[in-house]
Amino acid sequence: MQAGWVLLTLELLGVFAFALNGALTAMRDATLDLFGVLALGCVTALGGGVIRDVLLGEPVASLQVWWYLATATVGALAGFSGHRVFARMGRPLLVFDTAGLSLFCITGAQVALDAGLPAGQAILLGMITAVGGGTLRDAIVLKIPSILTGGLYAVPALVGAAIAVLGSEVGDVGLLPALLGAGACAALRAGGVLRGWHAPQARLDPPRNS
Amino acid sequence: MQAGWVLLTLELLGVFAFALNGALTAMRDATLDLFGVLALGCVTALGGGVIRDVLLGEPVASLQVWWYLATATVGALAGFSGHRVFARMGRPLLVFDTAGLSLFCITGAQVALDAGLPAGQAILLGMITAVGGGTLRDAIVLKIPSILTGGLYAVPALVGAAIAVLGSEVGDVGLLPALLGAGACAALRAGGVLRGWHAPQARLDPPRNS
Amino acid sequence: MQAGWVLLTLELLGVFAFALNGALTAMRDATLDLFGVLALGCVTALGGGVIRDVLLGEPVASLQVWWYLATATVGALAGFSGHRVFARMGRPLLVFDTAGLSLFCITGAQVALDAGLPAGQAILLGMITAVGGGTLRDAIVLKIPSILTGGLYAVPALVGAAIAVLGSEVGDVGLLPALLGAGACAALRAGGVLRGWHAPQARLDPPRNS
Repeated sequence: MQAGWVLLTLELLGVFAFALNGALTAMRDATLDLFGVLALGCVTALGGGVIRDVLLGEPVASLQVWWYLATATVGALAGFSGHRVFARMGRPLLVFDTAGLSLFCITGAQVALDAGLPAGQAILLGMITAVGGGTLRDAIVLKIPSILTGGLYAVPALVGAAIAVLGSEVGDVGLLPALLGAGACAALRAGGVLRGWHAPQARLDPPRNS
Repeated sequence: MQAGWVLLTLELLGVFAFALNGALTAMRDATLDLFGVLALGCVTALGGGVIRDVLLGEPVASLQVWWYLATATVGALAGFSGHRVFARMGRPLLVFDTAGLSLFCITGAQVALDAGLPAGQAILLGMITAVGGGTLRDAIVLKIPSILTGGLYAVPALVGAAIAVLGSEVGDVGLLPALLGAGACAALRAGGVLRGWHAPQARLDPPRNS
Repeated sequence: MQAGWVLLTLELLGVFAFALNGALTAMRDATLDLFGVLALGCVTALGGGVIRDVLLGEPVASLQVWWYLATATVGALAGFSGHRVFARMGRPLLVFDTAGLSLFCITGAQVALDAGLPAGQAILLGMITAVGGGTLRDAIVLKIPSILTGGLYAVPALVGAAIAVLGSEVGDVGLLPALLGAGACAALRAGGVLRGWHAPQARLDPPRNS
């Protein structure tokens, strides 16, 4: 029960962080008015969870209860009104994106486990939950999604979800695996961006047509 | 019962208007052949309802019965064959988009109420139904979606859905709230574009990376 | 029973072909690292089936069993590591895209029939299954989707699904209609690209705003 509350808190923190990130993205990458900022903040914050619930065939959590939408709205409004403050942070978009990614990969995996999925699928769904909102955000503002470009995006989420899921199978160790998973995800993501870690690349020479 | 028929008629009118708009968009913003025009018309016309049904966990209406797809196809064909006629209207894209938006925000909200959702969620789902098709249309032809840019798009749909839902809770007033809601949505949307009404804006100075 | 195994084999061949295509697209149209290539390969290969299952309200097949994801991963890895070999084929993207399209239009229609849909909707869903993955692929790398541009894309899938569905209603003719449908789809698609077959076009003169 107590773990349930902690996980809900972590999920709402993730919603808040992604809403802030989406709002700041809306103001930087496109010149949007207040409602556009709110809309992009809510899509970024709630999109991953909606995709997760639809894939699970479960009722969509953010339509069932009000606090998800309320938290996303507050987060987006905070981004809209406080963007000058956030601009003084180094890389505010990265900070909030990483926070949302790390929190959603573990909570998404837990929701999938609670819905009865086996470990492998729960890990995958944790990753999808984490990257879903940001992928919708990028598609809407017409950027190649973060998930496809440098700096590791999906891999940290996959690793975080795997640590959380596999760790919780070891025994009754409470929230430790979830927190370890979130920490690993954040570290990998930040390392990927700040240190330029990246996976091997390959490029086709452009054959003109086909 | 009679209200049911009126609402179905309004919904099919909305499908027709959005299909026309999608077809004209396909011919203006991208050079598409007949089948591309049909495809974009159908996605614009039926996308919002599909998203609504998937979020509600209900069977997708436009796969259950044939008249939605038939209406969308006829609307898109009308746009394809009559585009010279429509071009003589001032702003045909705006006219049909506003009609679809106004009709879908009230019918989408009503479908959500009929599915047992409380008022708040029904209003939200009415808005999502109204803006969903146009957002898919813009994503496909690679425009920043109307929902995010100037001239008020999501807000009129939200206001229209709210009037329809809250009005219908007042008492047995028949279709009056729905028609008032659709009218308010159309007025706000048209005012937003023609008069340049817009919400407050803010813009982040571009910090180079993050 | 035997037909079931043949259809599963055809579906996995389609997954493999689309994963290869998605991976090669990722390397040609965007400079992605290994994980980006894997992600785009899997989205291309599994997206159509996921959309099909969500529209049907069925559990998502590629989350229920592992072989879809495994096949997609192997296909994307084959594209990543063997891209120089494939580049020596004429138009490798077209070959694998056509293979996936032809196989998915018949298997998607069959899944829809097995789920109890009538013939018309099953044909439509076969087409959606076939074009869904490629449409997601194009949206993610920011191309106008193949479904909307020249060379016939959705029409061959529609024709292939129609032959498979209507043929199977004629009587107990085994897999013949499915194979005929896949062949017709491949022939139409290849003819569309190589011979420049296309449907009638029309274009609106750009009215500046609306």
